[in-house]
Amino acid sequence: MRIARFSIDGNVAFGAVEGESPPGSTDGLVLDIIKGIPFADFELSGTKVPLSKVRLLPPVLPNKVVAFGRNYAEHARELGNEVPDAPFAFFKPSTSVTGPGDAIAYPSFSSELHHEAELAVVIGRMCREVPRERVKDVILGYTCANDVTARDVQRREKQWARAKGFDTACPLGPWVETDLDPGDLTIQCTVNGQQRQLGRTSEMIHSIEDLIVNITEAMTLLPGDVILTGTPAGVGPLNVGDEVAVTIEGIGTLTNKVIKRG
Amino acid sequence: MRIARFSIDGNVAFGAVEGESPPGSTDGLVLDIIKGIPFADFELSGTKVPLSKVRLLPPVLPNKVVAFGRNYAEHARELGNEVPDAPFAFFKPSTSVTGPGDAIAYPSFSSELHHEAELAVVIGRMCREVPRERVKDVILGYTCANDVTARDVQRREKQWARAKGFDTACPLGPWVETDLDPGDLTIQCTVNGQQRQLGRTSEMIHSIEDLIVNITEAMTLLPGDVILTGTPAGVGPLNVGDEVAVTIEGIGTLTNKVIKRG
Repeated sequence: MRIARFSIDGNVAFGAVEGESPPGSTDGLVLDIIKGIPFADFELSGTKVPLSKVRLLPPVLPNKVVAFGRNYAEHARELGNEVPDAPFAFFKPSTSVTGPGDAIAYPSFSSELHHEAELAVVIGRMCREVPRERVKDVILGYTCANDVTARDVQRREKQWARAKGFDTACPLGPWVETDLDPGDLTIQCTVNGQQRQLGRTSEMIHSIEDLIVNITEAMTLLPGDVILTGTPAGVGPLNVGDEVAVTIEGIGTLTNKVIKRG
Repeated sequence: MRIARFSIDGNVAFGAVEGESPPGSTDGLVLDIIKGIPFADFELSGTKVPLSKVRLLPPVLPNKVVAFGRNYAEHARELGNEVPDAPFAFFKPSTSVTGPGDAIAYPSFSSELHHEAELAVVIGRMCREVPRERVKDVILGYTCANDVTARDVQRREKQWARAKGFDTACPLGPWVETDLDPGDLTIQCTVNGQQRQLGRTSEMIHSIEDLIVNITEAMTLLPGDVILTGTPAGVGPLNVGDEVAVTIEGIGTLTNKVIKRG
């Protein structure tokens, strides 16, 4: 099931996305409005609205976004970094999350913004110290993410709170796909229609199981929390006016336009 | 005014702390229950309860805790680090926050837990791109914090999400002091009554104004968010069974006991 979060006439709801559409379009898609929230047992209401009539929102409201660095070897090398032996994590705050179709606001303190296409794991239930074999049980589904990074600030500042945590640095969407094997999916990033990143999730150094075991060894994850699993090679600049799109096989496309921060 | 957050008979409320008590004790203190929340105009109800009858909670529920590294030169040097030219920030997640009197649970993945006594700034209103001269307007007050750190993990992992973000790694309290000039206060940490850290907030390299300008250049702060302003020299180990106390002049004492994670 594809679960979207959206607003219509000022109300916010979740809905199951039904139908098929041509690539890059939402024509023909319909939302069946969910009674309740997708983090517990829920029912479809049967009330349907065309996706074209709603505004899609970030598919979840994470308490925290935990992102893992250098989880694709070729990407680590392209920035001149060693491939780490063990996973390492950083946070993107909830205030950095933005939705599909929303703007990425180029921050004033950077002049080198980069895209990083990533598979995002959406957590479905409160959990800590999750054993490997239970990881599947705590996952609601998967969505696309862009770990937008002020590369110049990242080089200058030892910790990455500003470089990766500014407002709009975490586009998520367009929806959460709950029925998906994430093991070997193509992950792609285009800028203005030109391909910049192309990889497969099978190239991850540390698996999704490894990452969730690693982080929940330390901390509690809450329903709606998001894990970013690293970006494949091909990261590069974003400029004001660019349209950046992250497409993951079996999920869909997350598109955002870069604007000057107003 | 000293604003505490507390639970009594299962209800959670804010209250103004009144009265005087001997150092290290809450005898004689009374809470005047606040109608509403302290992030907007509020009134005291006049209903008073002895502090000894309630359980103090973390004085705020932050959406995020933004912490600054190496903001006291002597502390940077004691760990063999250079003193940074510009501030750098990292996050501690809301799930790491714990209250006065609560336990610090020694994480299983570390064998070198350290205390770091810090002055915490509590944000009073939503803000971004705060000009220097308006910084005072966005501050609700000040409390004590312990930036508990798994030092061995911090050395091993390039980013500090696990080392400083595990559950209970961010004790805050005992309350928020709203009427205080934070410019030159003694800040002290004891373990089992023995002094470990002693400094003055006047030794900060980057002022509170600098830190809030720096972080809000990048991101929105929300009411209840917390800024940790760095720790003075003298950091050192915590062991299971230890009682660690952070005392800041004009605020009070935040005491926590270290337990084995259950």
